[in-house]
Amino acid sequence: MTTSEKIAALRLSMQEHQIDAFIVYSADPHMSEYLPGEWQERSWLSGFTGSAGFVVVTKDKAGLWTDGRYFVQAPAELEGSGIDLMKDGVEGTPNYIDWLLSEVPDGGKVAVNALATSNTNWEALGQQLAAKNIDVVDLPLLKEIWKDRNSGGPKNPVFVHPVERAGKSVVQKLLDIRQKMEEQQASVHIISSLDDVAWTLNLRGSDVEANPVFLGYIVLTKNETVLFVDLEKLDLDARRQMDEAWVKMRPYEEFFPYLQQIRNEKILISPNTNQSVFDALKNDNTFIKGPVPGNLMKATKNETELQGFRTVMQRDGVSMVKFLYWLTQNAGKEAMTEYSIGQKLLEFRKAGKNFVGESFGSIVGYGGNGAIVHYSAKNEGSKAVTNEGSILVDSGGQYLEGTTDITRTLALGAVSDEFRRNCTLVLKGMIQLSMVKFPRGTRGVQLDAVARMALWKEGKDYAHGTGHGVGSFMNVHEGPQNIRKDMNAQELLPGMVVSNEPGFYAENTYGIRHENLVAVKEAETTAFGTFYEFETLTVCPFDRNALDISLLTGEEKNWLNTYHQWCREKLENDLEGEVKEWFLDQVKPI
Amino acid sequence: MTTSEKIAALRLSMQEHQIDAFIVYSADPHMSEYLPGEWQERSWLSGFTGSAGFVVVTKDKAGLWTDGRYFVQAPAELEGSGIDLMKDGVEGTPNYIDWLLSEVPDGGKVAVNALATSNTNWEALGQQLAAKNIDVVDLPLLKEIWKDRNSGGPKNPVFVHPVERAGKSVVQKLLDIRQKMEEQQASVHIISSLDDVAWTLNLRGSDVEANPVFLGYIVLTKNETVLFVDLEKLDLDARRQMDEAWVKMRPYEEFFPYLQQIRNEKILISPNTNQSVFDALKNDNTFIKGPVPGNLMKATKNETELQGFRTVMQRDGVSMVKFLYWLTQNAGKEAMTEYSIGQKLLEFRKAGKNFVGESFGSIVGYGGNGAIVHYSAKNEGSKAVTNEGSILVDSGGQYLEGTTDITRTLALGAVSDEFRRNCTLVLKGMIQLSMVKFPRGTRGVQLDAVARMALWKEGKDYAHGTGHGVGSFMNVHEGPQNIRKDMNAQELLPGMVVSNEPGFYAENTYGIRHENLVAVKEAETTAFGTFYEFETLTVCPFDRNALDISLLTGEEKNWLNTYHQWCREKLENDLEGEVKEWFLDQVKPI
Repeated sequence: MTTSEKIAALRLSMQEHQIDAFIVYSADPHMSEYLPGEWQERSWLSGFTGSAGFVVVTKDKAGLWTDGRYFVQAPAELEGSGIDLMKDGVEGTPNYIDWLLSEVPDGGKVAVNALATSNTNWEALGQQLAAKNIDVVDLPLLKEIWKDRNSGGPKNPVFVHPVERAGKSVVQKLLDIRQKMEEQQASVHIISSLDDVAWTLNLRGSDVEANPVFLGYIVLTKNETVLFVDLEKLDLDARRQMDEAWVKMRPYEEFFPYLQQIRNEKILISPNTNQSVFDALKNDNTFIKGPVPGNLMKATKNETELQGFRTVMQRDGVSMVKFLYWLTQNAGKEAMTEYSIGQKLLEFRKAGKNFVGESFGSIVGYGGNGAIVHYSAKNEGSKAVTNEGSILVDSGGQYLEGTTDITRTLALGAVSDEFRRNCTLVLKGMIQLSMVKFPRGTRGVQLDAVARMALWKEGKDYAHGTGHGVGSFMNVHEGPQNIRKDMNAQELLPGMVVSNEPGFYAENTYGIRHENLVAVKEAETTAFGTFYEFETLTVCPFDRNALDISLLTGEEKNWLNTYHQWCREKLENDLEGEVKEWFLDQVKPI
Repeated sequence: MTTSEKIAALRLSMQEHQIDAFIVYSADPHMSEYLPGEWQERSWLSGFTGSAGFVVVTKDKAGLWTDGRYFVQAPAELEGSGIDLMKDGVEGTPNYIDWLLSEVPDGGKVAVNALATSNTNWEALGQQLAAKNIDVVDLPLLKEIWKDRNSGGPKNPVFVHPVERAGKSVVQKLLDIRQKMEEQQASVHIISSLDDVAWTLNLRGSDVEANPVFLGYIVLTKNETVLFVDLEKLDLDARRQMDEAWVKMRPYEEFFPYLQQIRNEKILISPNTNQSVFDALKNDNTFIKGPVPGNLMKATKNETELQGFRTVMQRDGVSMVKFLYWLTQNAGKEAMTEYSIGQKLLEFRKAGKNFVGESFGSIVGYGGNGAIVHYSAKNEGSKAVTNEGSILVDSGGQYLEGTTDITRTLALGAVSDEFRRNCTLVLKGMIQLSMVKFPRGTRGVQLDAVARMALWKEGKDYAHGTGHGVGSFMNVHEGPQNIRKDMNAQELLPGMVVSNEPGFYAENTYGIRHENLVAVKEAETTAFGTFYEFETLTVCPFDRNALDISLLTGEEKNWLNTYHQWCREKLENDLEGEVKEWFLDQVKPI
């Protein structure tokens, strides 16, 4: 089926059900960022494969809302589909609620699949559409249309993430969570996000691409902890670990029936849980809506997890240096494409101890493709790479001890002065943010500008956040903290790992991004309070050929030299021969 | 009556009315920051004279909650009162709601004066205390106890702020406000904040110290605009202006009776309006709670108002330079106190054309008193000032064309290297914020750190905001924008005037603050969007004797030299003789 045919089939189904508009959020029942294949409803329907965006279809119009990262990719993928691109955050683009209010008649009906709609979205939708007496209903219309949908869930193994790496036992985690339940006077607690489920039980899986998670729900009551999961997937050690922590296991399919018999309880539940869960619990229960307590515990890494990060960063750094050497030496000499470069990088990483897989599909953007923020080169049609211009490589690995995420931008050959200037401005932002010290209580939104100021001074900016949380052998994107322009009330706390990744994108010409991971740590306590700073975790040199060193202040040069010296100490013993020689040249003082 | 006697009388009254706790917010019926004398209930009851804070009294405890600006002043004023200081924002200090929940018995009663309690506070209180079945009731208990309260309101004249200075006619303002009412489908709109009332009708008064406002309410219906005001106070021009804009005038006392007859209307009203207004309207009306539309219009100054600011800054700068010359030449030679210095500064300002009065009580803090952020030296007991150490002078003027607010910190004699270092770090912050350029959509919370980074790097900070909005011949503190650590969703918009005033305070030793006013203006539009920058408005040199120039970067030195050169151009023609000679020395390049 072409996209137009799918939309036509959906409209037919909408007509049968007397629905005026149908919304397809980019979501699964666990509100995951990366969706299992069977839940890629939005991609299936629209053809747009980006990580964020949703589609709204009425009887004669269809729109895809997505953000700045996809303003180049989306139009290409939507071409000929009849779906209009609605650029989120760009002046003149209507909010989808306003759009619905103008397109749907008074007293009309809007449908969503409640299983793939968060309670937050469901309620906001209902409240806002009530202004025009529009009803929101739960109708999984794509079920009927998407014939070859591969449902039933993946069958990948679920295995133990041992306490030696997790730093905290399942029993202790459950105790800590139950204490938070008590503080909030909750008698039941539902955990539905996959990374929270995996973190809580010190289990890992591979049901979602690049995320070491598995499909599951946890219900904590006063007396029991129940994991709803495809039982066959758990290996013996995993089952033993559940038994030892008094965790009962039940089939994944029994989750909703189990919920339906819960009565007269105070239920601590995240409003980011799918609406079907709320519907199943709606009789005779009270909801205490709030964040999953384990989520903040997960975000603030313990010393064992931080040590795991430090270990894998060194390992990842060795692979990155070997890769960068290979790339810079061979570009222009042997045939390579963006796709083959990504594969080569994966090969280097695979040689690393305890490497499990990529932490996300690597982004290798050559020349103008570097300006596509979440570009993903496919084997077919991927650009040939030579020794001209610049390339942006954003990649990461999942290791048993931790997760990496790194971006380096390289000059493969001659680059313009303008490129070098912008590449240096971005680096200045990354360095300034690396050096910042800040008092307890500071939120990411207060620090975001630090990474942008050098660009802002020249009327330049990047249309993405500066930093996202990173899990410990866990999802490469996690909350609740981030460093963005958006208002996020979560304070930065010691142990939180975040990316520091400003960028600059010249459409169709080149893309620049420098990314290190950093951990929040306590710096000092003075008469003015406790201050935190960032510990840089990522170990890999920056390409000085891409920079205009004259633009760096003395303080910034000093930071770069100290960083490169530190990289040398961390990596030189694991390198040899020509690679080492090249590396030592890369890390020498500027 | 002593404070203890007042508290005892209140407790007696609480007992009679079966009240478990009584809250005295720092507020009047118009939710003003500076309160008319008769509404200084909290100061009267507690003896604490700071601008922010509230008191809660139970049958055996009493607490005053206030913020970091008053941690030195409050204990002094509360001594012997039996009222405990509750330090807001300091770890371990209970939120007053939590405190009430622990002190008031289940099913108890908490009373407030609804006329001096915003709807926001009223509702939050009710909702949060409901957890323990505690009722919130409206009881103006202080009415009975405060015998010599001077009620009836001031009788100061209300006069026209002509369109030549306001830049926009009353008719146009009312049209603009009615358009916003229509957009929100409101049929009635209440304006109760005094600066919004004065701004809307291009009138000014002097009912509140330092704020050129008058007691009044405005009600806009579909067909009429009614100003509730003491009619005698309006001069002929003011009455004529009201007639020409079809504004009806009614006695101030008729406001509540008028409200009580409003039925079946959709009422646009700020939740920052006093609860008695909501109570009067509660029958058969719908509330649309939201900001007063005129408030944002007031905050984004038009070109006429900006020109007014530029004009008065020059005039204020001349007075400031003459004052600074007098102070630096005479400190240690003639007898002077913090209080007399403030009076002397007022004299210099009075010589300026169209000077109306101080925009707030000047803060002259010598040595350790400089560390008391909102210090107010009284005639009696004010510290003698000599030519030793440093002095902080924060002051401002109301002129018919605009409002000023400026802080300079001076070394009157020898100062320590540590002082000079901190004084320079604060200046670095002020300069960095002055230089920042930022994209449309940026909020103050994103820029606050820019002014703090230099201090943060050394584990230092200041316990107040970096910037507040400033009115145009209007209140020196206004919203909705600010530059603070707090989350404030209001974007900075062209025409907004804000202060840029980082500081540093060494308790009992010295205080440092540098403050300029700046206006947001459009800088450029590039491929990455529209960028804004700050235009500095304040014209007055900084004391180089207080600085360690070696700590400034080349960019910062350049900013300072450019600023001083600009000051020279603006002021030198209005100075002569020794003052001019001294001034030219102050503004020469560093």
